[in-house]
Amino acid sequence: MDNLYAVVLAGGRGERFWPKSRSNMPKQLLTLTGQSSMLGETLKRVGSLAPVERQWVVTGEDLVKSIEKIGIVGPRLIGEPAGKNTAPAIAVAAAEIAREDPEAVMMVLPSDHFINDVPRFQQALRQGADLARRGYLVTIGIAPARPETGYGYIERGEMLPDCSIPCFVVKSFREKPDAITAGKFLKSGYFYWNGGIFVWKAKAILEQIEKHLPELHQKLTAWQKQGGLSAGPEKFAEFYREVEKISIDYGVMEKAERVAVIKGDFGWDDLGSWEAVERFHPRDQQQNVLVGNCLAIDSQNNLVYSDDGMVAALGLKDIIIVQSQGAVLVCHRSKVQEVRKVIEELKKQPDGKKFI
Amino acid sequence: MDNLYAVVLAGGRGERFWPKSRSNMPKQLLTLTGQSSMLGETLKRVGSLAPVERQWVVTGEDLVKSIEKIGIVGPRLIGEPAGKNTAPAIAVAAAEIAREDPEAVMMVLPSDHFINDVPRFQQALRQGADLARRGYLVTIGIAPARPETGYGYIERGEMLPDCSIPCFVVKSFREKPDAITAGKFLKSGYFYWNGGIFVWKAKAILEQIEKHLPELHQKLTAWQKQGGLSAGPEKFAEFYREVEKISIDYGVMEKAERVAVIKGDFGWDDLGSWEAVERFHPRDQQQNVLVGNCLAIDSQNNLVYSDDGMVAALGLKDIIIVQSQGAVLVCHRSKVQEVRKVIEELKKQPDGKKFI
Repeated sequence: MDNLYAVVLAGGRGERFWPKSRSNMPKQLLTLTGQSSMLGETLKRVGSLAPVERQWVVTGEDLVKSIEKIGIVGPRLIGEPAGKNTAPAIAVAAAEIAREDPEAVMMVLPSDHFINDVPRFQQALRQGADLARRGYLVTIGIAPARPETGYGYIERGEMLPDCSIPCFVVKSFREKPDAITAGKFLKSGYFYWNGGIFVWKAKAILEQIEKHLPELHQKLTAWQKQGGLSAGPEKFAEFYREVEKISIDYGVMEKAERVAVIKGDFGWDDLGSWEAVERFHPRDQQQNVLVGNCLAIDSQNNLVYSDDGMVAALGLKDIIIVQSQGAVLVCHRSKVQEVRKVIEELKKQPDGKKFI
Repeated sequence: MDNLYAVVLAGGRGERFWPKSRSNMPKQLLTLTGQSSMLGETLKRVGSLAPVERQWVVTGEDLVKSIEKIGIVGPRLIGEPAGKNTAPAIAVAAAEIAREDPEAVMMVLPSDHFINDVPRFQQALRQGADLARRGYLVTIGIAPARPETGYGYIERGEMLPDCSIPCFVVKSFREKPDAITAGKFLKSGYFYWNGGIFVWKAKAILEQIEKHLPELHQKLTAWQKQGGLSAGPEKFAEFYREVEKISIDYGVMEKAERVAVIKGDFGWDDLGSWEAVERFHPRDQQQNVLVGNCLAIDSQNNLVYSDDGMVAALGLKDIIIVQSQGAVLVCHRSKVQEVRKVIEELKKQPDGKKFI
């Protein structure tokens, strides 16, 4: 397995976790569950499969310093001059890794997910690497726990032989469904959540990028001929600036052949909002979750979170309160997905920028 | 008028204004309306009647430093070794003032009220001083603006002659009424709110204290014979420790004769809670009041107040949010009178005390 690489995508801004996440310290760099940052946990989780010298992190150029600041210094860091969604980020990592090892197998991992059962997660990745060596583009599908409308789904087809856990040919990728469709997906047992976890040969994904995203591939090849990353940040920026924003799902996976899905059943959470954080803390008798120096009086079903000062809730119901770094969010539970509206508003205010 | 003294009672803790008010910096020392602290505004408001050398402030022993810290250094400060309600505080001030000037007339003023029309307020006090010289114990009644159940009321009797504004004999003092009674009071036109503003000769109130609170008077006299305040804080504490807690209304005014009430109509507000503060700021189109670095999105009828950092409200209705000195209160409007519950809770917590 010494040609297995980990590529962690860490370019997100985690705006739904404001005010704890900030533009220079987004969600994946925060300790929301576990012992260290979500990125740190992600790297640790795959360390036995891909040790630090075969770990790559693709992130925003401006986040490289923040990553080093939280003590992540082993992996190679690719600082993107601009966010271009997942396909260009994966293409760059694949090209650089293939240059180092033409037979390399790479795992692509989001940097901000929680995984409960790490051994089972590793087993799925190991199975993924095996299928990747057999020529598949592999995605780890998440066994759905509820009729969620917030994720894309993967429809499984025929089962693949010679696998230690259930693996299938992918029949289709599906966009975020409506509630009725999500219910049907869940009931059928044929659908998995698309969690953005992939395993493939670097060479194989580059071939598929060449086929389905020829313009990206052409620019990538030209830049690689100049020396790729080793040619320095200016050349990188020159190439990357011209690249189209597109996801690997939409740009490649939905069109590619020989795509496999592994049933992932290891306790997964994408920590999509402050409501998700609640699931990692005990509730009091009034169904309040209190984290940090907080108290709740005559209050039911609130999240009160402080890592800075203290917060007192009085007579509240269904409210999310987060105090961090001098800023406070007070948000009705029903609006927890709309926290980025606050950031949009802060951008307009002269005094707001320092709180973004 | 050179024997007119101002005695400002500044012993309150203003717990309903937490987290902006703290035990060492209570409501009356905060700038909630106007240009300076409420105590500072109170002293300024009567400066033309009783200049600084005839101003006395009675406050908690531990607040003397806080008062000096906010720049109030002219008036004489009496630091009570314990809170004993208004009768003992007034008795001490009256005794000390009478020692300085046996014919002194003293105005007694709460330190934490807002007054809109200062000239009319001064006119009422001047009229009060005139009646005090004619031997009356005078209270300034506040012309009621609504059927308020949170205040005591003063029932007026016969009109007094030779006054520049309406003055009456007091027929009775009434405890806080229920809503129906408050409505009747308002409709009748014969009732005023008891705002705790008094004018009398120091000698006259001492005589009434002797008559109605003989025990207090006896202890006061013994202490005065020792030298009063000039005998030092230990003697003061020795005397004061033994004194019964009692209000001047209950202890003296309700039983005294020759009590007059002046109709006060000068725009008065006792700033009883955060909801009162709202009245001093403009509302946005969604009826939110935003003070300081705050924003409100998809929110109606909230108060968002920050003097420290910033606060964002999202999807809220009828919520009061106050951020001050590292602490945040988030409180439903219906609970705004119960903020002291938070302080009670903080007292129990090891980390809570620094936020009180």
